[in-house]
Amino acid sequence: MTENEARTLAWAYLSRVAEPPCDEIAALVAEVGPVEASLRVAAGELSPALRERTAARRDIQAAEADLDLLERRGGRLITPDDDEWPALAFAAFGGSAVRDKPQGRPPLVLWAIGPARLDELALRCAAIVGTRAASGYGEHVTADLAAGLAEREVAVVSGGAYGIDGAAHRAALAVEGQTVAVLAGGLDILYPAGHSSLLHRISNSGLLLTEYPPGVRPARHRFLTRNRLVAALGAATVVVEAGVRSGAANTAAWARALGRVVCAVPGPVTSASSIGCHILLRNGAELVTRAEEVIELVGRAGEFADDLPRPSGPLDGLSDAEKQVYDALPARGTLSADEIAVASGLPPIGVLGPLAMLEMAGLVRREDGCWKLVRLPAQRA
Amino acid sequence: MTENEARTLAWAYLSRVAEPPCDEIAALVAEVGPVEASLRVAAGELSPALRERTAARRDIQAAEADLDLLERRGGRLITPDDDEWPALAFAAFGGSAVRDKPQGRPPLVLWAIGPARLDELALRCAAIVGTRAASGYGEHVTADLAAGLAEREVAVVSGGAYGIDGAAHRAALAVEGQTVAVLAGGLDILYPAGHSSLLHRISNSGLLLTEYPPGVRPARHRFLTRNRLVAALGAATVVVEAGVRSGAANTAAWARALGRVVCAVPGPVTSASSIGCHILLRNGAELVTRAEEVIELVGRAGEFADDLPRPSGPLDGLSDAEKQVYDALPARGTLSADEIAVASGLPPIGVLGPLAMLEMAGLVRREDGCWKLVRLPAQRA
Repeated sequence: MTENEARTLAWAYLSRVAEPPCDEIAALVAEVGPVEASLRVAAGELSPALRERTAARRDIQAAEADLDLLERRGGRLITPDDDEWPALAFAAFGGSAVRDKPQGRPPLVLWAIGPARLDELALRCAAIVGTRAASGYGEHVTADLAAGLAEREVAVVSGGAYGIDGAAHRAALAVEGQTVAVLAGGLDILYPAGHSSLLHRISNSGLLLTEYPPGVRPARHRFLTRNRLVAALGAATVVVEAGVRSGAANTAAWARALGRVVCAVPGPVTSASSIGCHILLRNGAELVTRAEEVIELVGRAGEFADDLPRPSGPLDGLSDAEKQVYDALPARGTLSADEIAVASGLPPIGVLGPLAMLEMAGLVRREDGCWKLVRLPAQRA
Repeated sequence: MTENEARTLAWAYLSRVAEPPCDEIAALVAEVGPVEASLRVAAGELSPALRERTAARRDIQAAEADLDLLERRGGRLITPDDDEWPALAFAAFGGSAVRDKPQGRPPLVLWAIGPARLDELALRCAAIVGTRAASGYGEHVTADLAAGLAEREVAVVSGGAYGIDGAAHRAALAVEGQTVAVLAGGLDILYPAGHSSLLHRISNSGLLLTEYPPGVRPARHRFLTRNRLVAALGAATVVVEAGVRSGAANTAAWARALGRVVCAVPGPVTSASSIGCHILLRNGAELVTRAEEVIELVGRAGEFADDLPRPSGPLDGLSDAEKQVYDALPARGTLSADEIAVASGLPPIGVLGPLAMLEMAGLVRREDGCWKLVRLPAQRA
């Protein structure tokens, strides 16, 4: 067994022996390295705290079988030993806001399947999350956002769930973009079962990730713990739809604690699945309506969203006095210049210049020494 | 003619002689009073600037006829001489941000019809404005907001236009609340014509206001100038729906310059009539979804919106360890305490307390020395 193989086995053992993230395991590894740490844990030569944390599982020697299973599925264990470890993204776990939160720690290792390189992908990545009970509106907007990001080479990370998560993954795949699903259980337990085909497709072109070894079942606390990794991998977390109680709000809270940009998509105030987004927006989240606006927040310097096209009107470019003169003319009939002055409130000498400009623009014309509109006035803006 | 009558005639004359707002007229009145100011304007004994501003209309002696017409319709001229003058609301025109804007001045006088007292109403008032091209969604939300405000004795001010404005006025009237329409032309020209019945109803129970004397037609620049009065009378301006180009955005800009709270209602990002609202929200407007949230911003100290009711679940109030134990149990079948420890990641001694609590809560039960769920797990939040 090479030294590398021994380290990989040790990491795999340690990833199962305590429910992640585990401060005491991380501290021990930092002190003595993964191989020595795994030996001490297995032998029970530990501080009382760590002995308690590892008591239930320290006799489970499944590392070799876990790694065999992973290899058979074409996967790999990504550890801090690897170049692929997204050290830059996980550096955010050093911040005090996230360290104050329970579970606010980086993962020990990541079990992964897929051709994408995690470190590269994490350099340009946004999270799109939301309620499983998505509306048609929510799924539509999610697809637009995810496709728009993926087309511009922003990877889309999400949680693989029904509703918004699934719509985000599917849209990224549809435009042949990169997408990452972070799971709350082992890679051999594709959850939800109805998404196993979607998750397989993600593992074929993007990346399936989890900090849990094979066989670990998704559970409520693991979804919440998993959410911090979704938030950490994205430079921004976009919540598309969320109810009052929503896992997406939890991901957004992780994003905020990690110093990431929190974005939310507005929706009808009459829609229960937008309530969570509106709460986020009232609490300082960035309002986003299209992919370009997300890229402006997470992209390279100089990637700005275009302004929305503004409908143009026939009076664009007129001066205020010209508009006042134009508006003073009735829809039908004519007025003298003096009458225009009275109606517009401009001095008589102030209406002649504007009238000449409007005539050149083809908007008014003279008739028997008076003036009339060439077309009906545009309606009030 | 009493002195009061002479002053009223002078104010009426001055309100027509220059297109409002007119700095030079305001300055002259401040210096010599309205009667002397009107005499000097009529005689042309003026600075060159003011002579130019008043050139077109200084010979129009319509004040008496205007006031007769107003009286026949049951109206009144509200001037700074009157207790009813909303001096507090108009004090905001002293701010530098609004003085930097063209037209950023208080009105000289207000032509008014209606039983409501303007000064009292302005103490508790919010503006609701928006696009004429309102969607069904926009009209529905407007009606909810306006009725909610009016029921809580907040007057609703708007511009009397089709779409959002009309929906706001109608909803306030429907709950017998106070509503004010500020017009962009004379009180004898009810615009839009299709709202003449609505505007009559407003004048019967609330207030119709304008700074323009009778006979002045609404015009583009007058709508924009009028918007500043809508913004000034409301402690907040709520934009419910607005396109990219919208008079409502202009009202919001006035509100901001006047130091008023600018609020916007979000809507579907796919709706053209919510684009203007989303732009406002991206630029710092307050997101509001219901009347209580507006009142929290404009109401008396201590008027807070209730929190939205949160759906409650069977696991509310459980500790994290109790939830972890609960989640470790399979939907069907039983586990021993040791197996629960392995699955949950808790130490074996750490699962007994939670199991006892869950048993008391009726969520798990013992069977042959093992544990099983009493009901199916609630789904992931």
